[in-house]
Amino acid sequence: MLHKLGVTEGLAQRVVATRWDDIPAQVRHQAKRSLMNFFAVTLAGCRSQPVEIALRSLAEFSGGRQVTVVGRSERIDALSAAFLNAAAANVHDFCDTHTPTVIHPTAPVAAALLALAELRQASGPELLLALILGNEVQARIGLAISPSHYARGWHITSTCGVFGAAAATGRLAALGERQMVWALGIAATQSAGLCECLGTAAKSVSVGNAARNGLWSALLAEQGFDGPPEPLAGVQGFYHALGEKPDLSHITDAWGERWEIMATSYKPYPCGFVIHPVLDCVLDWRADHPTADVTRVVVRGHPLLGVRTDRPNISTGRESQVSVQHAVAAALVTGQAGLDQFTDACVRDPKVQALRSKVEVERDESFSTIAAAVEIATADGKIHRLAQAAARGSDVNPLSDRDLEGKLRTAAAGWDPRYDATPLIDALWALDKSADVGKLASLAVPR
Amino acid sequence: MLHKLGVTEGLAQRVVATRWDDIPAQVRHQAKRSLMNFFAVTLAGCRSQPVEIALRSLAEFSGGRQVTVVGRSERIDALSAAFLNAAAANVHDFCDTHTPTVIHPTAPVAAALLALAELRQASGPELLLALILGNEVQARIGLAISPSHYARGWHITSTCGVFGAAAATGRLAALGERQMVWALGIAATQSAGLCECLGTAAKSVSVGNAARNGLWSALLAEQGFDGPPEPLAGVQGFYHALGEKPDLSHITDAWGERWEIMATSYKPYPCGFVIHPVLDCVLDWRADHPTADVTRVVVRGHPLLGVRTDRPNISTGRESQVSVQHAVAAALVTGQAGLDQFTDACVRDPKVQALRSKVEVERDESFSTIAAAVEIATADGKIHRLAQAAARGSDVNPLSDRDLEGKLRTAAAGWDPRYDATPLIDALWALDKSADVGKLASLAVPR
Repeated sequence: MLHKLGVTEGLAQRVVATRWDDIPAQVRHQAKRSLMNFFAVTLAGCRSQPVEIALRSLAEFSGGRQVTVVGRSERIDALSAAFLNAAAANVHDFCDTHTPTVIHPTAPVAAALLALAELRQASGPELLLALILGNEVQARIGLAISPSHYARGWHITSTCGVFGAAAATGRLAALGERQMVWALGIAATQSAGLCECLGTAAKSVSVGNAARNGLWSALLAEQGFDGPPEPLAGVQGFYHALGEKPDLSHITDAWGERWEIMATSYKPYPCGFVIHPVLDCVLDWRADHPTADVTRVVVRGHPLLGVRTDRPNISTGRESQVSVQHAVAAALVTGQAGLDQFTDACVRDPKVQALRSKVEVERDESFSTIAAAVEIATADGKIHRLAQAAARGSDVNPLSDRDLEGKLRTAAAGWDPRYDATPLIDALWALDKSADVGKLASLAVPR
Repeated sequence: MLHKLGVTEGLAQRVVATRWDDIPAQVRHQAKRSLMNFFAVTLAGCRSQPVEIALRSLAEFSGGRQVTVVGRSERIDALSAAFLNAAAANVHDFCDTHTPTVIHPTAPVAAALLALAELRQASGPELLLALILGNEVQARIGLAISPSHYARGWHITSTCGVFGAAAATGRLAALGERQMVWALGIAATQSAGLCECLGTAAKSVSVGNAARNGLWSALLAEQGFDGPPEPLAGVQGFYHALGEKPDLSHITDAWGERWEIMATSYKPYPCGFVIHPVLDCVLDWRADHPTADVTRVVVRGHPLLGVRTDRPNISTGRESQVSVQHAVAAALVTGQAGLDQFTDACVRDPKVQALRSKVEVERDESFSTIAAAVEIATADGKIHRLAQAAARGSDVNPLSDRDLEGKLRTAAAGWDPRYDATPLIDALWALDKSADVGKLASLAVPR
């Protein structure tokens, strides 16, 4: 029988065949940056309520102290650790974004990989290569159905993340091509997650599952647990069930010529990214005017800024992440826009409340989503005009390596002021020279 | 703010409010029949390769000897046991069918319930009520989008089973209405499974997950892990993401007036159900003609019989389950149509091979899918004409209680000839009088 190479086979073949030597230096470096950001956001999220409840529940069923839970003294089995670390990374919506698909790529992939790397011996280059390939697989599977898939209500980080985690851990486990197809098939039949759950604890379940189930897909495939030859493009496969007409050229075209991890942005602020250029303006100005008496603020930006974040009346920290009024008010009062500024307590702060009512939003189609202009009126009658053309953290104005280190240090300090983040930061930058990454995650654990 | 009762809330309210006294006697009895069938098919599947691999893999991560794995001496944590027992129940496609949706309802629901019942104290009536309600929930959620959902390639047993398992275990755990909505939301964001995986080990992953993840949804919700208020019908919820226009009247209309578990059929033979009326004819005739020399067989039935099962050339036991030629040949050679007749070995049997080539299929639109006619020509020149109007096991010609006991005894004997199934059978019929069902599953374990 003639055998035409299938879509999934073509993808699996490339994942299996790509070598560390094929990866350009700036792509390798970006993988380290993604891990730096991953540890920052996981330390920020590791004590959130969804993670606490899930950890307590999973511990009841777990074989115990196999693998690190980032930021915590508890250890747990590798599948549960993959779940918990991915959930923690994503819980505050502070993790990285693959701009073309809005996938948060590193949470499921890195969480699955770190769990496997602790079970088995793996070198730094093997870990980074697997991370880059997992990112690539989930981004390409998502690109083929973007933006319709996310727009329909599928939580694309979860639905595509399970493929990324399976491909990444499958690569770290050195699966052959046939096993890699099986792993992607076992992942496909576990692909799930609804945007309806955003803003609730249930969001964390599909993100955690993407890591846990992706890892398990690779482990099952390694043991000979088979799947169909064409889980992606088959007549009853992933894309058909979703009701999509995928552009399959995205799956393997120009493989190795561009790397999707380069399209990753990292957030400086734990809130909706359309608010970011506004915060850039306000924080810069506030640094020079710490005691100013602000009487009125007008922010102007892309229509999405109004649609998504024009919310003067809010009552919870979670809502505050999508309120430009709150973000501006909190930044003016505290001079910061970190996790502490998006809490229930900050929302209830009388000074912040008073200032929120003085912030107005104007929609202007001439702005891109990463641009904004801000006018701040002060009691002395002055009007201060500020503008940001490309938000910090966007792909055209990326956070610097030092910014990412700072994000990790800030998250770590909020989690445990006595913790010294330097050994973890140093280990991450030196990953390409590391012969064994089994202890990496444990550098992000309280002593 | 005005609050209109949501679709999911309406469903949750009914699950929480329905009492054992509301359940008619014949519905209670049908629940016992479904459990009888569940143990039969789980004993038949508990040593299949997918279950073996999954058990070995999960054991590496599990806390151990918490809950029974049906038919096996190993014990494992409750979440993994739910996975394994559901996977085993469904692996041979021998489990029960909710005729209007083709959901195999009991595998995910019973597996999740038995795991929870072993963790905590539960009575027989509590178990049966939860089973009936879990069945009801998944059938109604599936009815709202049948037949389009399954036709698109979604493995409806898995995608809807996770809701059934969540509702059933949530009820057994006595969740309140709000927690039940959360449980259904956590289930919704885990709903997954592709028909593309049928015929491979990967099929078992989504079925096992439906039980495991449904159970975990209830346990998380019980701990205050919240979800959205409208996971089913919300603007980014289950039905919208699936791209369906659900008929939401199915979700709660006439609740308590009819029970979907009454629309369950149980299979006498482990093969495609369109083959069943043919086997009824052939087996009856073979019983009277054990030594006849068959020269030709013509089977006539609904066009689906031809579309799905006209496969004279097959090479594996798995394929044989959808080959009417094989089923007829094996039944004529052995006088049986059990699990042994759908194995690789039986497919390779020279006598069966020779007879397969003598079986012809005629499609006739005047037949229903549960009817068939068979002509058997013998070497003595005679032609024997047989017909079945309604296959055994179909909803209009249901297996008797004794048939179901026989199915369990046969499956048990194939699994361990020394095992006495009587205590399990007696315990199942007496479930409505049992004060504690914690030991039920262990009656299906080798001594």
